[in-house]
Amino acid sequence: MEEKEISQAVIGRLPRYFRYLGELKDEGIERVSSQELSDIMKVTASQIRQDLNNFGGFGQQGYGYNVEFLYQEIGKILGLNHRHNLIIIGAGNLGQALANYVNFERRGFLFRGIFDKNPKLYGQKIRDMTIQPMEGMEEFVRQNDIDIAVLTIPKTEAEQMARRLVGYGIKGIWNFAHVDLSLPEGVQVENVHLSDSLMKLSYNINRFTMSN
Amino acid sequence: MEEKEISQAVIGRLPRYFRYLGELKDEGIERVSSQELSDIMKVTASQIRQDLNNFGGFGQQGYGYNVEFLYQEIGKILGLNHRHNLIIIGAGNLGQALANYVNFERRGFLFRGIFDKNPKLYGQKIRDMTIQPMEGMEEFVRQNDIDIAVLTIPKTEAEQMARRLVGYGIKGIWNFAHVDLSLPEGVQVENVHLSDSLMKLSYNINRFTMSN
Repeated sequence: MEEKEISQAVIGRLPRYFRYLGELKDEGIERVSSQELSDIMKVTASQIRQDLNNFGGFGQQGYGYNVEFLYQEIGKILGLNHRHNLIIIGAGNLGQALANYVNFERRGFLFRGIFDKNPKLYGQKIRDMTIQPMEGMEEFVRQNDIDIAVLTIPKTEAEQMARRLVGYGIKGIWNFAHVDLSLPEGVQVENVHLSDSLMKLSYNINRFTMSN
Repeated sequence: MEEKEISQAVIGRLPRYFRYLGELKDEGIERVSSQELSDIMKVTASQIRQDLNNFGGFGQQGYGYNVEFLYQEIGKILGLNHRHNLIIIGAGNLGQALANYVNFERRGFLFRGIFDKNPKLYGQKIRDMTIQPMEGMEEFVRQNDIDIAVLTIPKTEAEQMARRLVGYGIKGIWNFAHVDLSLPEGVQVENVHLSDSLMKLSYNINRFTMSN
């Protein structure tokens, strides 16, 4: 299939469509117009049509969108019809919090292992996972078909660890370390920079306070 | 001061400038050209100049940017010269992980209290904070000049809680609940939708795998 390049801005909005459609589905709603979707999502109907047209449309003139169908299709576009196997590198507070997050599993993201370099943590259990030493990582990744690594380690160690993981065949890095990783092409990186997010909030508070 | 509206895209990039300038500063580097900054940040020099021109420029022809000065100025724009007092609502794994995150304090974000509705958690200590019942929240917010609330509660409870906090005078919500909050104008919301981020990663992995 010939595919055109789709902007990361559009891709960034897809999970939100998926979420709202999931809610409509749970409420038993079978179809929705782009105008109705626009009202609940607070984006313009034309933006919705434009975004979805990137993937072939899905809507029917005079009918709108079939909720269940669109939900499934967006799920497929997001790759949620494939199961993803994840490991967490760094069993600190954040790593443990993520490991305990069961909601990801409903979307097919399965945490399979958690690793740390601190020997005091080895053997501790988080849900059904045991914290393991870094040394066993390569074998674990290869044997368990791990495709995503979650980095919750200090920024000074993140890039080296990411490169190591890429060498083991990891396809995606979910990066919580406060650094931009520079990795070979073909490895997907998604950053969650919590400090950046907090600073953006600070900016908006500050600006609103000053202008009022 | 007459201010023009600055796009959230520009604002979203400011923390990243701040981070890179902080690193240059820590390395003892005193000045940097937009081209050098462009090379390390992997954005175009013209984007950098454009972004910074929103705030009046800061650069000098033939000299570039003074690192320390630009760092301080961007910090001020981000409101980091003001201290922010935060409370966390929801002392589950994520709430506790954030409460333990000391790096935010260096930027002036001080966690002052943590609240939960589960009586079993009352009295438990996280760093120097004691988990408190929700009932005491209003008084705590008012007495401790709290301006930011961090929501790490289920999405079904988030909007009601946010509205309650707005009533107490909170200016910003750092929202980890997987829902878009609909709040009165003037209250700033910054979302961290972890599932959305993970789905975006899944999309990029999936798409790269299919096209190669």
